[in-house]
Amino acid sequence: METVSIAELIETKQHKELKGRLMDANAFDLAEEFESLNREQQAILFRSLPKNAAADVFSHLPAETKENLIGLLTDPELSHIVNDLFLDDAVDFIEEMPANVVKRVLKNASEDTRKQINQLLQYHEDSAGSIMTTEYVDLKEEMTVEEAFERIRRVGMDKETIYTCYVTDNKRVLDGVVTVRTLLLANGKDRVGNIMSANVLYATTGDDREAVASIFQKYDLIALPVVDTERHLVGIITVDDVMEVLEEENTEDFYKMAAIEPSDDPYLTSGVFQIAKKRIFWLLVLMLSGICTGGIITHYEMVLQSLPALIASIPMLMDTGGNAGAQSSTVIIRGMAVGELRVSDGLQIFWKELRVSALVGVALSAFNVAYKWCVSGDLRLSVAIGASLFATVVLAKTIGSMLPLLAKLLKADPALMAAPIITTLVDAGGLIIYFSVASLVLAA
Amino acid sequence: METVSIAELIETKQHKELKGRLMDANAFDLAEEFESLNREQQAILFRSLPKNAAADVFSHLPAETKENLIGLLTDPELSHIVNDLFLDDAVDFIEEMPANVVKRVLKNASEDTRKQINQLLQYHEDSAGSIMTTEYVDLKEEMTVEEAFERIRRVGMDKETIYTCYVTDNKRVLDGVVTVRTLLLANGKDRVGNIMSANVLYATTGDDREAVASIFQKYDLIALPVVDTERHLVGIITVDDVMEVLEEENTEDFYKMAAIEPSDDPYLTSGVFQIAKKRIFWLLVLMLSGICTGGIITHYEMVLQSLPALIASIPMLMDTGGNAGAQSSTVIIRGMAVGELRVSDGLQIFWKELRVSALVGVALSAFNVAYKWCVSGDLRLSVAIGASLFATVVLAKTIGSMLPLLAKLLKADPALMAAPIITTLVDAGGLIIYFSVASLVLAA
Repeated sequence: METVSIAELIETKQHKELKGRLMDANAFDLAEEFESLNREQQAILFRSLPKNAAADVFSHLPAETKENLIGLLTDPELSHIVNDLFLDDAVDFIEEMPANVVKRVLKNASEDTRKQINQLLQYHEDSAGSIMTTEYVDLKEEMTVEEAFERIRRVGMDKETIYTCYVTDNKRVLDGVVTVRTLLLANGKDRVGNIMSANVLYATTGDDREAVASIFQKYDLIALPVVDTERHLVGIITVDDVMEVLEEENTEDFYKMAAIEPSDDPYLTSGVFQIAKKRIFWLLVLMLSGICTGGIITHYEMVLQSLPALIASIPMLMDTGGNAGAQSSTVIIRGMAVGELRVSDGLQIFWKELRVSALVGVALSAFNVAYKWCVSGDLRLSVAIGASLFATVVLAKTIGSMLPLLAKLLKADPALMAAPIITTLVDAGGLIIYFSVASLVLAA
Repeated sequence: METVSIAELIETKQHKELKGRLMDANAFDLAEEFESLNREQQAILFRSLPKNAAADVFSHLPAETKENLIGLLTDPELSHIVNDLFLDDAVDFIEEMPANVVKRVLKNASEDTRKQINQLLQYHEDSAGSIMTTEYVDLKEEMTVEEAFERIRRVGMDKETIYTCYVTDNKRVLDGVVTVRTLLLANGKDRVGNIMSANVLYATTGDDREAVASIFQKYDLIALPVVDTERHLVGIITVDDVMEVLEEENTEDFYKMAAIEPSDDPYLTSGVFQIAKKRIFWLLVLMLSGICTGGIITHYEMVLQSLPALIASIPMLMDTGGNAGAQSSTVIIRGMAVGELRVSDGLQIFWKELRVSALVGVALSAFNVAYKWCVSGDLRLSVAIGASLFATVVLAKTIGSMLPLLAKLLKADPALMAAPIITTLVDAGGLIIYFSVASLVLAA
């Protein structure tokens, strides 16, 4: 059975069928429906949403669609949406909008919402504060389990998670945590203070959001409370936001490791100039290094003139050195990113990479010597190439593994010390080794 | 105040203090304590754990420590651990152990546990079945909310999550889902069938675990039910396992993109031969391509002899081409990995990369022509280099963006089409362009 599309239902004004369709649908799927509609259809669809679902759907729309909808909504409609959004979603949304839209949005927020949004907007975009929401269930130690459930039922509808509840004292200082699971398994007359866990993990508003994500991964959490410097509870972070952070951080690492400035903007809707701008800086820097590497070749022109056959192996040496270095830097950068490796493992890593590179270097060199000897019949030349390759691989893997650790030690981002930089350094080093070895062999 | 370390408490036989310390500690933190202890101390610490925490701590230990402990535990102790582990953790653990240990573990599992473990072991390691657990709360449509809570209280203690409950019919077919939140906000006399959501997202046992992770990300889930081909509920997947999957998949992509065969083994405890083995294959393949690229230079020996200054720019051309290509392939590979780009966007991507590469190419070439002209005073040579660089950048970005899409189209992994392969292809292409342009300019 072919179902009628939502666009058709809108065009043929089948409002009743439309509302029926929207009743049971998932907010994420509904948000996707907007993509195939034009501006007017988007507004009609949005107004047809069940009232309690509108804000949820809205939070999952792309920035463009949000901006378009806001332009078409009346002030009371807008006010309803803003006040109904989870606060962290409201903040994300406001950060995406141009200034004039932000102004209209904040004007239509309730005073309480506006105050909280402004509070959240102050946190640095990489901080725990920026991904937290202020909507959580708080309990008091004196409450009984029954009273706790009453409170959860009363305030829980609007909270992002109700499954972990936070116990605070009268000054809002975080004292403990209790899960709904514990509450359900406890006796109705038990005191919250007696069944809560006082050993509570928390983040501080200024903590780096990547560090927060690591805590979620290490302790398999669903939510984490966030406190200010005086341990007052100010918000919570939920696992869905952490998964987004992890995805963004991973993308950032992929970009940095490919010498691209990270960007949050989606590729397909980004302008060509904007994309080019993110790529040109590092290309230029690395091109300058490439020019310097070329200078090395010029420096050894005499050697090349007496043995032109040396030139043919330059690409092989440069490529292999770059690849060998990239392997090592990637393993170390990733190992540090997932918390498996630390700077203090440096010596162990150095020793391990030295042995790995020796093994790999011997294998690749042996192959190369044999091949070159067969093809050229020149054993001296073949040995010179083999020896250079070996030294280049060892150099590449040592530089590749040590530079990310050095970056970390200097509090820089290890991901910047990836393939492109390593390649450039190893190119220069490899060529110097190559020509020096060749000069020696020629002189012998 | 300096606290006494756990190792010291064990050595000085302060059993009471030790148990007190363990009472309130987090299972994840306790698991870390084992790292600093010797084998005998590990066994003492493990036996001192509160009985209900032992399995939880065990599941977070590294494979080595697990194997060591099992060697020291008695059969009844082992039996207690195995039966107390969450089933997905038990399966992970069994998959890490050598055959003789597995045999002993399964012998000491209860018949029911053994049956379920064997069932789970049958799923392919990349499938939804392999990361699910069979411990979930199932409800019936006829139950009232009160009866549902009774059931949750009765069976919930041993379940990995109780917050999402699954509603099945008498044949265990999945009918709906209801959260504890909904149950808490409902009236005690309501029927589960009336408040559940029948529009339930689920995975099938054979689904790829990466696809499952995408569903979690898209819909912000905490748990997802898994059904067999007849829609019988067989298990659930929880968000903590999905975060692990995402981390592993990202690591795999990083490794593939750096021409390393992916491996689950931790770096620090892996042998040197084992590590070298994962790296040597692709280095060898790429080295062969490098040798071929060298053949291109040899082929154009005549051109080089008449203008030796051409050599100096080879590293710059190769590096810049490789970097420009790596940028594009990384953006496309990552975009597909996070679901932002699809093969069907191919034309749009092609057109965008063409324009981006033209912009980037013009900027880099202009710089190069100006620089080379200043340094060498040879305008013809400078223009030849600039034109070659421009063509190389455009070629690099086109190949770099299209190859991952082609791989996806051919159902291969796009991550394999990353920097190293692109670099090799672009090296060859870039050199051919360079020498052809130089020949033309020389002939003119």
